[in-house]
Amino acid sequence: MTNVLQVIPARQGRAVRLQAGQAIRIVNTHGTQVVDTWCFNAADMGEFMSMEHLHATLGSIFPVRGEPLFTNRRRPILILEEDTSPGRHDTVIAACDVHRYALLGCRDYHDNCTDNLHAALRQIGLRSDECPSPLNLWMNIPVAPDGRITWGEPLSKPGDAVVLRAVMDCVVAMSACPQDMIPINGADCRPVEAHYEVLT
Amino acid sequence: MTNVLQVIPARQGRAVRLQAGQAIRIVNTHGTQVVDTWCFNAADMGEFMSMEHLHATLGSIFPVRGEPLFTNRRRPILILEEDTSPGRHDTVIAACDVHRYALLGCRDYHDNCTDNLHAALRQIGLRSDECPSPLNLWMNIPVAPDGRITWGEPLSKPGDAVVLRAVMDCVVAMSACPQDMIPINGADCRPVEAHYEVLT
Repeated sequence: MTNVLQVIPARQGRAVRLQAGQAIRIVNTHGTQVVDTWCFNAADMGEFMSMEHLHATLGSIFPVRGEPLFTNRRRPILILEEDTSPGRHDTVIAACDVHRYALLGCRDYHDNCTDNLHAALRQIGLRSDECPSPLNLWMNIPVAPDGRITWGEPLSKPGDAVVLRAVMDCVVAMSACPQDMIPINGADCRPVEAHYEVLT
Repeated sequence: MTNVLQVIPARQGRAVRLQAGQAIRIVNTHGTQVVDTWCFNAADMGEFMSMEHLHATLGSIFPVRGEPLFTNRRRPILILEEDTSPGRHDTVIAACDVHRYALLGCRDYHDNCTDNLHAALRQIGLRSDECPSPLNLWMNIPVAPDGRITWGEPLSKPGDAVVLRAVMDCVVAMSACPQDMIPINGADCRPVEAHYEVLT
């Protein structure tokens, strides 16, 4: 079976099921795009990858290549098997939502990662009560020793990719972040598409 | 009306309702005790103080004296009005739970902040589907520029206190963290009681 590269359209979300042992390769096609990423236990949507549990179990606010990502029950759900980027992925910032854009001055509806998560799950017949705090791939949020955070631009280059291998049967959801009001998706504030493929 | 100092017994949780404008003073009686703290909108338990939303809105992983604490709808729910301690309160580590203690080698049930939250809410007739990531008062978790976290001992001294003023009608829950397997509650790993009073 040939792996097929799938698009995550700009400003949209996608979700895919993985069996234990399968992996997903997520590609930062243009190098500037943040991809908010979630993972749920396929057998129980109440168990999901949790950044606050990851911090405690891993001892770091940045994911570490070769190390697992943990659920809210502190079990490994994915392994960050490969990462061709400098490894700066954010784990402390919530997914954007309508409230975020309203605070930034947006008066109309704005695409957002929270709604993208729920739409992507519905597209494959699933739902989650929660929008867990995401693994924000390529989102560059330096944290200073005094706690201050900086909204940086991605350090990745076009074609950089991560491979996440499933430890249990799970559902991975991704959102090509539609943030265009601050330069988190590159200096030109232009959200673009990303890609993924399931490695079989 | 006289304010009454209430105990949060060692290893246990308590919850209290606040009306908008009221405040709660939480006291680190012995100076070494971490108090996991949550806050819910009294009219909708689905809206709660959220650390991942706080990080984005405040621009810091440490709460700032005089500044609000935000909900998962990015609304102010409490204001950190006073803080006599050095201000090192953790916002990146999940509440401890049975899974945490099992990973540390505990074979029997161990008191934990997650169960304390749910018990404290039930005691006043409420429930939450979630255990939101808590504001861990006095928990000293330095984060290095490379992302590594350190499990420090509290920097607070006996009697240090914070005052949290309610911006909306809300419910504050607190757990005197029962962690006694690592020295997060002081070098002697001895969880002790803390206190609180509602300021009317």
